[in-house]
Amino acid sequence: MESLNIKPYKKSHSYSYVFGAYLVIRLIEEKPEIIKGVLIHSKYDDIHRLTSLCKSLNIPYLISDKAVNRLSNKENIYVIGIFNKYQTSIDIAQPHIVLIHPRDMGNLGTIIRTADGFNIKNIAIVGPAADIFNPKVLRASMGSLFSINFQYFDSFLEYQAEFPSHELYPFMLKGSLPLEDRVRDSSFLFSLIFGNESSGLPDEFSEIGKSIKIPQSISVDSLNLSIAVGVAGYNFACYHDLIE
Amino acid sequence: MESLNIKPYKKSHSYSYVFGAYLVIRLIEEKPEIIKGVLIHSKYDDIHRLTSLCKSLNIPYLISDKAVNRLSNKENIYVIGIFNKYQTSIDIAQPHIVLIHPRDMGNLGTIIRTADGFNIKNIAIVGPAADIFNPKVLRASMGSLFSINFQYFDSFLEYQAEFPSHELYPFMLKGSLPLEDRVRDSSFLFSLIFGNESSGLPDEFSEIGKSIKIPQSISVDSLNLSIAVGVAGYNFACYHDLIE
Repeated sequence: MESLNIKPYKKSHSYSYVFGAYLVIRLIEEKPEIIKGVLIHSKYDDIHRLTSLCKSLNIPYLISDKAVNRLSNKENIYVIGIFNKYQTSIDIAQPHIVLIHPRDMGNLGTIIRTADGFNIKNIAIVGPAADIFNPKVLRASMGSLFSINFQYFDSFLEYQAEFPSHELYPFMLKGSLPLEDRVRDSSFLFSLIFGNESSGLPDEFSEIGKSIKIPQSISVDSLNLSIAVGVAGYNFACYHDLIE
Repeated sequence: MESLNIKPYKKSHSYSYVFGAYLVIRLIEEKPEIIKGVLIHSKYDDIHRLTSLCKSLNIPYLISDKAVNRLSNKENIYVIGIFNKYQTSIDIAQPHIVLIHPRDMGNLGTIIRTADGFNIKNIAIVGPAADIFNPKVLRASMGSLFSINFQYFDSFLEYQAEFPSHELYPFMLKGSLPLEDRVRDSSFLFSLIFGNESSGLPDEFSEIGKSIKIPQSISVDSLNLSIAVGVAGYNFACYHDLIE
């Protein structure tokens, strides 16, 4: 740990950070093998428990106010985890959420947390898209990134070719059936497909699978992306008994 | 307009700002009577239509790159609306969303947008809470603040005393029935009650009305507040035919 060269987060680095004890402990519980080290501020109120946990798993740690302050800027952060970025594959036997060009890091993190919460633990992302390892995504995900599988694709066609058995449900303002009707007749192997924050899905998605609209008032142009994923995810998860 | 003294937003001011043409046009359409003026950057690509609209409604406007840049800081903002803060009352004959001490401005704005989208247009807020007129709330609400009624209360008891006919549905991790069961037996005059981002509702709410849990995986501590409101709001609105 002492020789660690600490720099602010960059997308091009092979490692990233999680800030705060809650996220660090979740990282340790879910993916101890990817951790490079843990930085601890001397003001953290549970140092002994954390350092014991690190020792028991052979995770390097360093108590250094200077290192913590340098990375966390002005915020009241007392624990930072440093981990190696990693790849996962999504499960062909499980339902998916498919995000086409998600750009907003807060939305992406909230969607990951929500998908984890509704036990839809496989997320396909068609790039270009927000950087899933950015600490802002991790914070909004509340560490749920470590509990799900994600996989990037260059195009929707590439995703479709790899998972031909999934029933495709694109969410569109002009979807052909409302959510409550579609969900009652849906397959367990579902793919819930969402466009990006500003433009939604391109029109050609209305030709793909079984499009869905979420009923909404005329006074809004659309719902926030993470709200749309939440509403859809909950109703599909509930119908297919993924949550109870 | 020329004499307008332009300062960054403060909670203590009697006026606030909306940034960007979409929000300004929504403000003009929904609440022209509260507008103090509109600032326009010379690079805005639809100046003629906007100034015509302002003239037709006797809304003062000023084309001033300096004024726009000063208020918008680094962002690519070309139109700013300045409006007087106002009060509204929530409707005793309509369903409500009740937020207890919401703190996060992005969440509050997203909840307002979502409530508007699901036609639950009356929001009670028990303070202390985030400042609903902060431009960050307005941005996350996408201007939906101008389409809904909101009312602040000093305590939940004060809310309850004013609306004794509403059926109370507190959302809690330990709620006594899951959402899908509760909604099927719910009253039209519902109050969906949510605690704040970090602590949820205090335990005593389990003694009030008909508590609800949103089923979720054990791997998350809770859902994001705006997601919980979205999922609950959609399912209640759908069941009571508020949206189609």
